[in-house]
Amino acid sequence: MEVAMEYVARVPAETLHAFTRDVFVRAGISPQHAADGADVLLWASRRGVDTHGVRNLKLIYLRMLEAGLINPRAHFFVEHETPVSARVNGDGGLGLAAASWAMRLAMGKAEQSGMAFVTMRNSFHLGAAGFYPAMALERDMIGLCLTGHFNGQGSEIGVLPTFGSRPMFSTNPIAVAFPTQNEAPWVLDMATSIAPYNRVVLHRENGLPVPPQWGLTAAGEPTPDAQLMKKMWPLGSDRAHGGHKGYGLSMMVATMCAVLSGGWDDGHDEDPAAFDGFKQTGDSHFFGAIRIDAFRPVDGFKRGMDAMIQALHAAPKEEGQERIYVAGEIEHETEQKRLQEGIPLTAVTVADLKELSEKFGVGLDI
Amino acid sequence: MEVAMEYVARVPAETLHAFTRDVFVRAGISPQHAADGADVLLWASRRGVDTHGVRNLKLIYLRMLEAGLINPRAHFFVEHETPVSARVNGDGGLGLAAASWAMRLAMGKAEQSGMAFVTMRNSFHLGAAGFYPAMALERDMIGLCLTGHFNGQGSEIGVLPTFGSRPMFSTNPIAVAFPTQNEAPWVLDMATSIAPYNRVVLHRENGLPVPPQWGLTAAGEPTPDAQLMKKMWPLGSDRAHGGHKGYGLSMMVATMCAVLSGGWDDGHDEDPAAFDGFKQTGDSHFFGAIRIDAFRPVDGFKRGMDAMIQALHAAPKEEGQERIYVAGEIEHETEQKRLQEGIPLTAVTVADLKELSEKFGVGLDI
Repeated sequence: MEVAMEYVARVPAETLHAFTRDVFVRAGISPQHAADGADVLLWASRRGVDTHGVRNLKLIYLRMLEAGLINPRAHFFVEHETPVSARVNGDGGLGLAAASWAMRLAMGKAEQSGMAFVTMRNSFHLGAAGFYPAMALERDMIGLCLTGHFNGQGSEIGVLPTFGSRPMFSTNPIAVAFPTQNEAPWVLDMATSIAPYNRVVLHRENGLPVPPQWGLTAAGEPTPDAQLMKKMWPLGSDRAHGGHKGYGLSMMVATMCAVLSGGWDDGHDEDPAAFDGFKQTGDSHFFGAIRIDAFRPVDGFKRGMDAMIQALHAAPKEEGQERIYVAGEIEHETEQKRLQEGIPLTAVTVADLKELSEKFGVGLDI
Repeated sequence: MEVAMEYVARVPAETLHAFTRDVFVRAGISPQHAADGADVLLWASRRGVDTHGVRNLKLIYLRMLEAGLINPRAHFFVEHETPVSARVNGDGGLGLAAASWAMRLAMGKAEQSGMAFVTMRNSFHLGAAGFYPAMALERDMIGLCLTGHFNGQGSEIGVLPTFGSRPMFSTNPIAVAFPTQNEAPWVLDMATSIAPYNRVVLHRENGLPVPPQWGLTAAGEPTPDAQLMKKMWPLGSDRAHGGHKGYGLSMMVATMCAVLSGGWDDGHDEDPAAFDGFKQTGDSHFFGAIRIDAFRPVDGFKRGMDAMIQALHAAPKEEGQERIYVAGEIEHETEQKRLQEGIPLTAVTVADLKELSEKFGVGLDI
């Protein structure tokens, strides 16, 4: 659901990529990590996923770097590994780069072993989760990324468990990518809440109301006011509409990311029997790469994907709808368009980028 | 959401297990496959998952066996394998037994390699998907099962794609299990629709209305009439409530099961470029087993699970709610109760079982 935003400028994707990379470098990030970070943010911006694009460069990453909450000189490292698995540590670094490194590790192992999974703790916000599984596509692998946070004491803003009144989860997304032959690659990238909270922020920033079905105020009331929405519903909303399933998926993500990696135990103290000694500090992630030819020849798989997508395209439509889309299709079309026309930016983002340009002495022609 | 059904009898789980196994054997199923089949059905009946329990013995399995749609002498076989993967064929046999065999294959490979996935085609309805991941718990593995069907031409009954007016998917469930230390094992077993269609059938059978938010009539209208509900919403319902995510999950399940196994291509004919030559005949499944110690020592993982569950139990409740549950917890408590009190049966199920008892000469004291 693209937010009806007012754009004030368009900048070529390559220009924004170089700018983002250079700002990261001037902020103390190594060139390789800076390039990875720019890749992730521009992937989202190209595809119209503006909640996760360059608008976050200042809003999230530079702000956290300046606050000393991101370690600019992180050395990501392996804590435990086998030919098909690894538990790794993001060293408190830039999540965008840590996650790129971990996904490459998963793909490298999968190349050798057929498949591999990597769970990572002590990382940070990784941007658009869909970027990482999409990395696997050109290697004819199925890609997977989960990123999760569980707050044992709850928090003001986040996702509610079914029957709970205090948010306990982040929006804990699931992202999966399947290669195709001629159709757009199938890329699912979904929060396990009805909407991610940063979509509420984007609405607020643009003075727009939010759909009240997304969540509740601090007092537990539905609201269209983006300032007031704090408690997000899990996918499905309440119990009667299947919200326990969204909640279950959110907890599955938290487990694969934060329990399997040890991220949730990092603060665990004297009493191993008491949950209140546990505290997940950074973000935790989970990555997977599965070679399709571990199961069947790649060509047949891709033909099957195309045929399934074509069958959905040809299926009867709901009244008033002209197309049935599959996951990643709208974003793929937006990408083609934005590669031609440039990345559209709102007034808020333009102001942020100009501020970064001056501050770090990195030129940007907007 | 347990259906408020009227029970007319209670039978010990062991008695029903032996009966189920013996009926399968008399119907021509091999003793091993019959025992596997009884395990799956009784697991569901013990846990209160009545939609998938012994009520289906006649309704689904015996009916299909008699119609010649299930091959009673199936030999499940491997079509392709590596140390971490297999593509297997259910030989048109009893899905309950085929799936048990495939999950054992996944666990055996995982024991050696750290993890393994198995995709299966040419199988049939596998009962409660949660049974298979739960098999992995005692081996300190994470278990996974998906089962999926995609109908390229659509069908009268099934799950709608977002913006579509014709059902294209089955309820394509996702089931995952995580071992715990002292808490009930965490077992998520969820249709990727708001509710599975056989829950509508169960309501109809018991003369109960259905929640209208679950789905639509053939004409696309909401209805509380279990006779009329045909088109099920994906989890989330319409686009504004996140239904495209439930639809995305459903297609992910269909891909891992039916595209990766080749099940969706089985009918594919002359023209490989045209989807209308593709047709998924039987059911397809996907199984996974992941050793926890491929990532971290098992004890720490289990302590982390317990701590997360305890934190959720302790979290503030929505007004009017006394407990926050985690996946599998209600079913675990039902199981303790039913192991004491016996499996409660409705009049319809009692009549079905008595009919099978006479027909196959297998005694059953109800």
